[in-house]
Amino acid sequence: MSIRFPVLAAAAALLGITMLPTESYGDEGMWLFNNPPRAQLKQRYNFDPTDAWLDHLQKSSVRFNSGGSGSFVSADGLVMTNHHVAAHDLEKVSTFEKNYLRDGFHAKTNAEEIKCKGLELNVLQTIKIVTDEVKASVKPGMSAAESFKARQAKIAAIEEAATDEKNHIRADVVTLYAGGQYHLYTFKRYTDIRIVFAPEKQAAFYGGDPDNFEYPRYDLDVAFFRVYENDKPIKPEHYLKWSPNGSQEGELAFVSGHPGRTSRQNTVAELSYLRDPGYPYLLQRLNRWEVLMQAWGGRSERNMQRCEEELFSIQNSRKARSGGLGGLLDPHLFGKKVAEEKRLKEFLAKQESTEKTKWVADAKAAFDTIAKAEKVRAEIIQRYTMLEAGAGFNSTSFSIARTLLRASEELPKKPGDRLREFGDARLPSLKLNLFSDAPIYEDFEMLKLADGLSFLATTLGPDDELVKQVLAGKSPRERAFELISGTKVRDVAAREKLFAGGKAAVDAAKDPMIELARLVDSASRAIRKRSEDEVEEPKRQAYAALAQARYAMDGDKVYPDATFTLRLAFGTIKGYTEDGKKVPAYTNFAGLYERSKEQGNKGPFELPKRWVERKSQLDLKTPFNFVCTADIIGGNSGSPVVNARGEVIGLIFDGNIQSLVLDFIYDDTIARAVSVDSRAIVEALRKVYDANDIADEILGKK
Amino acid sequence: MSIRFPVLAAAAALLGITMLPTESYGDEGMWLFNNPPRAQLKQRYNFDPTDAWLDHLQKSSVRFNSGGSGSFVSADGLVMTNHHVAAHDLEKVSTFEKNYLRDGFHAKTNAEEIKCKGLELNVLQTIKIVTDEVKASVKPGMSAAESFKARQAKIAAIEEAATDEKNHIRADVVTLYAGGQYHLYTFKRYTDIRIVFAPEKQAAFYGGDPDNFEYPRYDLDVAFFRVYENDKPIKPEHYLKWSPNGSQEGELAFVSGHPGRTSRQNTVAELSYLRDPGYPYLLQRLNRWEVLMQAWGGRSERNMQRCEEELFSIQNSRKARSGGLGGLLDPHLFGKKVAEEKRLKEFLAKQESTEKTKWVADAKAAFDTIAKAEKVRAEIIQRYTMLEAGAGFNSTSFSIARTLLRASEELPKKPGDRLREFGDARLPSLKLNLFSDAPIYEDFEMLKLADGLSFLATTLGPDDELVKQVLAGKSPRERAFELISGTKVRDVAAREKLFAGGKAAVDAAKDPMIELARLVDSASRAIRKRSEDEVEEPKRQAYAALAQARYAMDGDKVYPDATFTLRLAFGTIKGYTEDGKKVPAYTNFAGLYERSKEQGNKGPFELPKRWVERKSQLDLKTPFNFVCTADIIGGNSGSPVVNARGEVIGLIFDGNIQSLVLDFIYDDTIARAVSVDSRAIVEALRKVYDANDIADEILGKK
Repeated sequence: MSIRFPVLAAAAALLGITMLPTESYGDEGMWLFNNPPRAQLKQRYNFDPTDAWLDHLQKSSVRFNSGGSGSFVSADGLVMTNHHVAAHDLEKVSTFEKNYLRDGFHAKTNAEEIKCKGLELNVLQTIKIVTDEVKASVKPGMSAAESFKARQAKIAAIEEAATDEKNHIRADVVTLYAGGQYHLYTFKRYTDIRIVFAPEKQAAFYGGDPDNFEYPRYDLDVAFFRVYENDKPIKPEHYLKWSPNGSQEGELAFVSGHPGRTSRQNTVAELSYLRDPGYPYLLQRLNRWEVLMQAWGGRSERNMQRCEEELFSIQNSRKARSGGLGGLLDPHLFGKKVAEEKRLKEFLAKQESTEKTKWVADAKAAFDTIAKAEKVRAEIIQRYTMLEAGAGFNSTSFSIARTLLRASEELPKKPGDRLREFGDARLPSLKLNLFSDAPIYEDFEMLKLADGLSFLATTLGPDDELVKQVLAGKSPRERAFELISGTKVRDVAAREKLFAGGKAAVDAAKDPMIELARLVDSASRAIRKRSEDEVEEPKRQAYAALAQARYAMDGDKVYPDATFTLRLAFGTIKGYTEDGKKVPAYTNFAGLYERSKEQGNKGPFELPKRWVERKSQLDLKTPFNFVCTADIIGGNSGSPVVNARGEVIGLIFDGNIQSLVLDFIYDDTIARAVSVDSRAIVEALRKVYDANDIADEILGKK
Repeated sequence: MSIRFPVLAAAAALLGITMLPTESYGDEGMWLFNNPPRAQLKQRYNFDPTDAWLDHLQKSSVRFNSGGSGSFVSADGLVMTNHHVAAHDLEKVSTFEKNYLRDGFHAKTNAEEIKCKGLELNVLQTIKIVTDEVKASVKPGMSAAESFKARQAKIAAIEEAATDEKNHIRADVVTLYAGGQYHLYTFKRYTDIRIVFAPEKQAAFYGGDPDNFEYPRYDLDVAFFRVYENDKPIKPEHYLKWSPNGSQEGELAFVSGHPGRTSRQNTVAELSYLRDPGYPYLLQRLNRWEVLMQAWGGRSERNMQRCEEELFSIQNSRKARSGGLGGLLDPHLFGKKVAEEKRLKEFLAKQESTEKTKWVADAKAAFDTIAKAEKVRAEIIQRYTMLEAGAGFNSTSFSIARTLLRASEELPKKPGDRLREFGDARLPSLKLNLFSDAPIYEDFEMLKLADGLSFLATTLGPDDELVKQVLAGKSPRERAFELISGTKVRDVAAREKLFAGGKAAVDAAKDPMIELARLVDSASRAIRKRSEDEVEEPKRQAYAALAQARYAMDGDKVYPDATFTLRLAFGTIKGYTEDGKKVPAYTNFAGLYERSKEQGNKGPFELPKRWVERKSQLDLKTPFNFVCTADIIGGNSGSPVVNARGEVIGLIFDGNIQSLVLDFIYDDTIARAVSVDSRAIVEALRKVYDANDIADEILGKK
């Protein structure tokens, strides 16, 4: 469940700007496919990946735009990922009577496969370096705001030129090394994705939130989708074959996936921001939402079904962020970051005395620029979170209403002048999301909005003029009732009509939720602009300068911070020692039954019915989950783990609790990535789920 | 579960100062036994309570110093209260193998009854008005700090003179009307309390946190204790008889219990403080702790047993405070409070023009004094919470260590010069608590302290000098491990020795937790002093002035805000209408089985095994819970509900969600007190629990 990249807009707000590391060590690194760690692999493992090996792995890898990773695993377009990556899609197609998220799903024929709502998969095709082109758009003498606008316009133009909608080619200019480099990624874009198989959640997420981020584990966190085009399963040119014998302790393993975000090159000023106001404030919100949904979900099974996917997401982020905060509060670890920064500063000091180049001066100034930006960030974080990140209007209805309002204002503008999310290249994805007919539950919306309005009122103060206008003389609860029951935006047809009708239609609609979005929009845009001009853009430039300085210092022994783009990680399958106790690398099926017994077979530790019934048929020695030292983070969920022959040996689904510091610093003493073993998947498919069809398909026997 | 008076020190910190109302209406009022609502009862119900009736009810009523109410219900010292009031005591005598909190308990003989650890019961004997004496201790020209000290010294002296330790007479000077009056209460104090009966928690707290503060309800929230002296059950002079026929809709009902705290006479400035920083900050802490304990408790049954009582307390406070905050954010309700204040100000304005008395000027100045104090309160709340309220050192071990340290410093002083909790009159209770051998779990302590230190570090900042000294170069987790595993204060014998040895022994102990308490004590005392001098004392004087003004305005139609002293409330048994739907006054046993079915008999809605087995023997029409309009609040948990003949018809255990605004304003439209019906208690004792012995004892048949 744990390491999906959190797409909670409000939660992710203003956290993390990306950068590059100084020196890597051990099995460190989330490497670009166009700059793989050849030297490290040669030196540590005497392994030389060929270009074909890399190309095959790249094109077999799949990005779930809902926030995870996956891979093609059959000639007929079967995609493997985690159950928890699939969870949101399972929920969207479930009803109270047919709860696929809870009970699992298995399509025995293609005809039974269920089409997902609003899911988009991307497969990386080409990478082109466009750094010079993008950088040239910023002219000397431009203000920060002008630089930002000029760069955005150039990026939009490059993306537009490379987009080929007819052939479903999506193009994104990816910012790497915090603006040190820009790469143009083209993706094959798939939007007809169908659900083939998912186990019951109790098997996939066995141990629930209590065992999340812990090890040993016993989770069958797997799901299969099939990709369609023109109503037929695709025949991918590249897909991964299954390892015939699984893996063994000490073996070299590769992970190909999409780590969402790391903050390894953050300056001490930025880390201090995160440690002091940033993470504590985020955790405060996560705690608030977790308690809200736990309490409401507890009132009835129906409520729980409506909120559980969001609740799990929140619990997961909460655990991840507490772990990260724990790392930041560890003076030993924080001291390392301080020492790293000192080393860079000393390097810069020496440069100045030997050669006078602009980047040295820029890099030296960068520390102060970032510190200043962090001060502004601390100052605006609450208002930004409430308004632009929408925590004060927490509901899907509000998000839709605001998207409709802003679309009516942004789309008539030139692409380069629009808010980033309305750029031409992003429009197909935006529409897919906006017109999704995933259910939106009125009662759950009411709960969240009432809480959001109450959060807004207590954050800005009930006597704040904007708050007064938002509440319109009512209590948060009354106002939420009025807005949610009054708006029409939950009707997909109404949304399509308003979107198509543009500004005139949106203005004429007099929809209360759109009017609310309108009421707060100038304040919301103003705080966003401040964030862009005084936080994001100065930091982007400062980190780019530091990136250059680090290049100068450490050469090319570097990989960029994670950005939810495809990366290659590597490591060894091995256990670790915790409080003097050995934790073995593998668990097995027998361990699942023992854990259940030990916990009284209750709540998150209750065995799924099928697993009780089929126990005698299972080979209990089958390896279930395993750990390795590969460098992963949220977003890597669903990444294939392959051996040196590029064959599937596992499926990443979590990191242990000690890996939560990987956001800031790599560690392979006890931090580990956690995977489902490929052998467990086949054994369970055959013996627990009667899914020989899928087992045969991934083993190429069909 | 809900309306126990929260004794969470950190949670209750700085919230609520007490005052008196202007006008009562309907069934409003938490009346003093020495000023009962004779006029209201006569007028509304044509009922004249005799002095004997009142005296009998008063002396049958019991205060649980752990934070609840109860009553004598047999000639052999049997005391009835709620299961949730008893929960902490059940937990203390439970082991992992014998879990009385979860599974229930029934002593078939006196010999089987289990002695509680550290529980004290008080029975109010006499009330004497000492207002003049206390007020005379404050001389004109004294500063706020001097006034506070002089008054404390006088109160300590009065309490000391009235205390009769040999005869177990405890004396407390009680502050009423925010200092408008001082009453000397003497109590019979009982410390040998034994557990006689408790149902399983699942029956007592059926529906769990989801149904807490909701109605309809189906809870058998009852427990019985027996009071001993000299190792024999006492024969109380007063105890309540059972109503032979229960009650019926429309009947007049009385509640005699100990409402903990109300804030009905708070000025708008104080209510604004509570609405803006106060409650949101408290809820933030409660959310934090709830999530911490849910996650840890979820890891294993053993963990859950260790934390569940504290977790329930937190969830309960969280729900209560969210309800209160909801009321404060309701402009209609807040408007009423503004209007009330305006009326008082207008009255004062008129007074000035007619007569020049000091109280008019004082009352006029009081509004500003309070507003100023609230500003200071907002300024110091975080530091106060961390240090003096101990949220930064969240653990029982730290509380004990600090008590030992402060006792060694305070006890050598004159009683009047000591911190209030070390006054001579309070020492027996303090010792009972300090030397209790209730289990303190090392792992749970570690969890809470690590979280507390982390909270401290992020609140004051990890670079704060005091924080650095507290953490001593370690992470919160490492430091918590060192402190908890290193301290000896969890050993009762060690505590007793240190307490007896005084300052020399405490200084020589070099116990790491005591040294931590010493390290922070001057900062902690300083912030407490600021709170006393700049918040509590000025407010006490200002509210006293306002109290006088309100007397002048409204005469004696007044009752003081709740102060966890014995009060009489009254009302009618009746249902209400919610969202156009009728909610009947009574539920019955049949409803319990329906609720379980509707919720899939899962989690908090699972029927206890005994109730499944005995269903066929039960009269399913037996009334189970009922609601009435009596004016109650947290602390009233376990209060007996009696009819006009003084016979038990029910047992208060909750308020509905609409009653959560009662903290600030009485309402009888839909706010209701929730009770267990006396008939349900007898029927369940006989048919579900085979406890005919107890049923016979309370019905006087034994």
